[in-house]
Amino acid sequence: MKIALVGLGRTGETVARYLLQQGVLSMVLCRPNSLKIDKDLGNILNMADTGIIVEPTDHLEERLFYRKPDVIIDFSCHSFLRDNIHLLAKCGVNVVTAVTSYETAELNKIKRVADRGGIGVVMAPNITYGVNILMLMAEIAAELMNDYDFEIFEEHHKFKKDQPSGTAKKIADRIRDNSLLYKEIPTHAVRAGGIVGKHKVLISGEFDQIEISHESYSRVAFAQGAYKAAQFINGKTGFYEMNDIFEYERNQRRQR
Amino acid sequence: MKIALVGLGRTGETVARYLLQQGVLSMVLCRPNSLKIDKDLGNILNMADTGIIVEPTDHLEERLFYRKPDVIIDFSCHSFLRDNIHLLAKCGVNVVTAVTSYETAELNKIKRVADRGGIGVVMAPNITYGVNILMLMAEIAAELMNDYDFEIFEEHHKFKKDQPSGTAKKIADRIRDNSLLYKEIPTHAVRAGGIVGKHKVLISGEFDQIEISHESYSRVAFAQGAYKAAQFINGKTGFYEMNDIFEYERNQRRQR
Amino acid sequence: MKIALVGLGRTGETVARYLLQQGVLSMVLCRPNSLKIDKDLGNILNMADTGIIVEPTDHLEERLFYRKPDVIIDFSCHSFLRDNIHLLAKCGVNVVTAVTSYETAELNKIKRVADRGGIGVVMAPNITYGVNILMLMAEIAAELMNDYDFEIFEEHHKFKKDQPSGTAKKIADRIRDNSLLYKEIPTHAVRAGGIVGKHKVLISGEFDQIEISHESYSRVAFAQGAYKAAQFINGKTGFYEMNDIFEYERNQRRQR
Amino acid sequence: MKIALVGLGRTGETVARYLLQQGVLSMVLCRPNSLKIDKDLGNILNMADTGIIVEPTDHLEERLFYRKPDVIIDFSCHSFLRDNIHLLAKCGVNVVTAVTSYETAELNKIKRVADRGGIGVVMAPNITYGVNILMLMAEIAAELMNDYDFEIFEEHHKFKKDQPSGTAKKIADRIRDNSLLYKEIPTHAVRAGGIVGKHKVLISGEFDQIEISHESYSRVAFAQGAYKAAQFINGKTGFYEMNDIFEYERNQRRQR
Repeated sequence: MKIALVGLGRTGETVARYLLQQGVLSMVLCRPNSLKIDKDLGNILNMADTGIIVEPTDHLEERLFYRKPDVIIDFSCHSFLRDNIHLLAKCGVNVVTAVTSYETAELNKIKRVADRGGIGVVMAPNITYGVNILMLMAEIAAELMNDYDFEIFEEHHKFKKDQPSGTAKKIADRIRDNSLLYKEIPTHAVRAGGIVGKHKVLISGEFDQIEISHESYSRVAFAQGAYKAAQFINGKTGFYEMNDIFEYERNQRRQR
Repeated sequence: MKIALVGLGRTGETVARYLLQQGVLSMVLCRPNSLKIDKDLGNILNMADTGIIVEPTDHLEERLFYRKPDVIIDFSCHSFLRDNIHLLAKCGVNVVTAVTSYETAELNKIKRVADRGGIGVVMAPNITYGVNILMLMAEIAAELMNDYDFEIFEEHHKFKKDQPSGTAKKIADRIRDNSLLYKEIPTHAVRAGGIVGKHKVLISGEFDQIEISHESYSRVAFAQGAYKAAQFINGKTGFYEMNDIFEYERNQRRQR
Repeated sequence: MKIALVGLGRTGETVARYLLQQGVLSMVLCRPNSLKIDKDLGNILNMADTGIIVEPTDHLEERLFYRKPDVIIDFSCHSFLRDNIHLLAKCGVNVVTAVTSYETAELNKIKRVADRGGIGVVMAPNITYGVNILMLMAEIAAELMNDYDFEIFEEHHKFKKDQPSGTAKKIADRIRDNSLLYKEIPTHAVRAGGIVGKHKVLISGEFDQIEISHESYSRVAFAQGAYKAAQFINGKTGFYEMNDIFEYERNQRRQR
Repeated sequence: MKIALVGLGRTGETVARYLLQQGVLSMVLCRPNSLKIDKDLGNILNMADTGIIVEPTDHLEERLFYRKPDVIIDFSCHSFLRDNIHLLAKCGVNVVTAVTSYETAELNKIKRVADRGGIGVVMAPNITYGVNILMLMAEIAAELMNDYDFEIFEEHHKFKKDQPSGTAKKIADRIRDNSLLYKEIPTHAVRAGGIVGKHKVLISGEFDQIEISHESYSRVAFAQGAYKAAQFINGKTGFYEMNDIFEYERNQRRQR
């Protein structure tokens, strides 16, 4: 599999380094006015030369035709996929997008193109594989533990500005969606020191409790999650979220 | 629903007190030579009189005919259900058993009678509802997190003798049964102070980890689990474990 | 040592039961209009008779003269010690008070009498021995970890109304008092299920963190803390808080 | 302050990178036959050139005379300080050593030279500042919580071979040394995934418990601890361990 990466922000750089180590990175794209354009990726990552020269996202069709990546991993911003989904479908390049800021109309467009079978898309908004499993567990608890109280904790380094985290909000949504009864789900946000990222769900009943927590040791966890999604979407069409991938994998195994 | 309780050991007494509070306890049975026979249950529990007189387990058929309980909750020992399952089937009394020490032949017998439809049995070996959900979550992790390492921790008060706990062993079994790859699962047993009961599964990958833990605040959690199982089995036939109950509940909800 | 207990609220009852087990309870006092007056304590605690008849707090001097307790443990309200400290000093009865709601003027009065040497008083506002040790640890961290961020978590059952808990506020005060730099200390309060009581301090730096947590298994922990304080104050005079007791114990040991 | 670093193993490289960022690194030494000799440090760290050329540890006197570092941080092995302590004393260069494998005779020699006032030495065996504070807290608990049970947990990545960790053993020693009663202290070692490093002490009594845990987010925590020790020892003489530094700092503050 050959992967193209779009976006070289802080997490993007980590992803680039990880994909290089896996030997699957063949192309890196940046917005046309970036100072990183035309530099060797190694230079940007403070490493030895890699032979991969950062390219702008304009003239995308020729560039894709020339490099022929199988999957694009998108750590840039909402406009890239919005503007290029038809082109990517035409070129046969699938997408894993870690972008979080899509508007509803953009999401609908992406979903429509993917559902019609023209392209495979995984929508995995900047979260790790592990935190998706946390969500699945929280859903099960929501279904089966109606008379328990749920509280969410998220902890991040003191420079993270938004709170609660998007992931915490999504966990709360999914608990609510799977509960029989309406539940208020208080969310506690911690911003302290250099915490990479933790999410915890406390489920407390009258006589016992369950805690489920996810903790990232390093930002590489984001890269790993994106790569797992890329391996999944390679050669498929349709629109997927991470939990669809879990369902798919479990069904595959059961058929064996 | 009318419930009969068999066994008045330490946990049995807690269960009795809980079922009294729920207003569902109508009968208490003990081994024939127990000093508790013929006493009012309140006297044994250091409470006001309850009107329930502790009865021996002999002459069981007449006693059941007279009291007509819907479900028996069994916190005694392996011989009670082994010796009486046909009688219970005949009397139409279902069973939740919290006994842990059945031999394979006994288990097979119980299962056979229940599978033939003569009686409803829930096998719920002295564990809480919550810890069964912990197990379900651990199974999911085992299925989806093949390249992660699993470790189990269990913590109990210093007077608990066996280690690791039966629950910890069962968690390990279910992780192994659901993993694609063979996994060694180290288990750490803590015996300290007055810890009521905790089980934790650590799932650690290269870049992130998940922890799932269950903690009982009080022994009443055991009573609550048994009562939930009794509510489930009331009016059904067949052999069930706690995770069958989860499956059943989830399917019920999906059909709505 | 003979102990008198004042106050038979929810925690007061737990303390009574614990002191009975220790064989040190010789007297129980209640407000004069309580329905518990003149009943056997066993009757109130839903136990067998104890021979201890609940007495009102009026005519206190004669009552103390007659029973001669060494220490009073006070789980009633602020007026008892305010109104009776001179009398207790006169009768030579020391006090452990677990009351939290003293006004400054009341506190000053109590302190003054104790400092003058007339009586021994331990001010231990309804908290366990263990949580006092948590506070001591938090102080050390505050002194030595100036460039770390502190956050406090407290978890209690859903029926506890005030939040954050008095203990959480006190922990925050003591961190602030021992820090070189001013620190904001966010406090997160959880009210869920039947949690007996937990307090946690997270101390997070750029590259590492410390967590200190205290958890009560049962309300008996409060009784145990009060009893430890009673053992300490028996035969002493002066005003003490729990950390003074720690200092005292450590100095004792070092002199050995 | 100018710092020299000895040793460029895995942790040594992290320390070098950290000291460069702090702007205090002026010299790097390696064993004479290392392939890193004569290379620019930036080259070894996969960074831009730094102007610091790696030097061998032979002809140490001339090298120190020429570079005049204030403090050496030693991440090499036991022979460096054993062989060079007199020379370092003569040159007026203080030492922070993170080496763990000294023999008793070596330790005694180092201590003797430092106690005589010829040099300042901090013995800080490859552990973070934070874990030293954990130890201090564990000592306090050992002193004050005699009737509690202690258990130690340590978690590290799956490639760490020795177990339990040296730090876990040291924590156990210090609990034992500060306990009135003899205590067995079970230690649980976890080797899983990519865990950077965690240590936890569980202190469990009949009715409540305390947990103290330390977790490193990254190996930089080791570098930070060594740098704090270097700042302390700069300009002092004598032999210190980390807890001596804590005592010193607290006394300093109290005199203010």
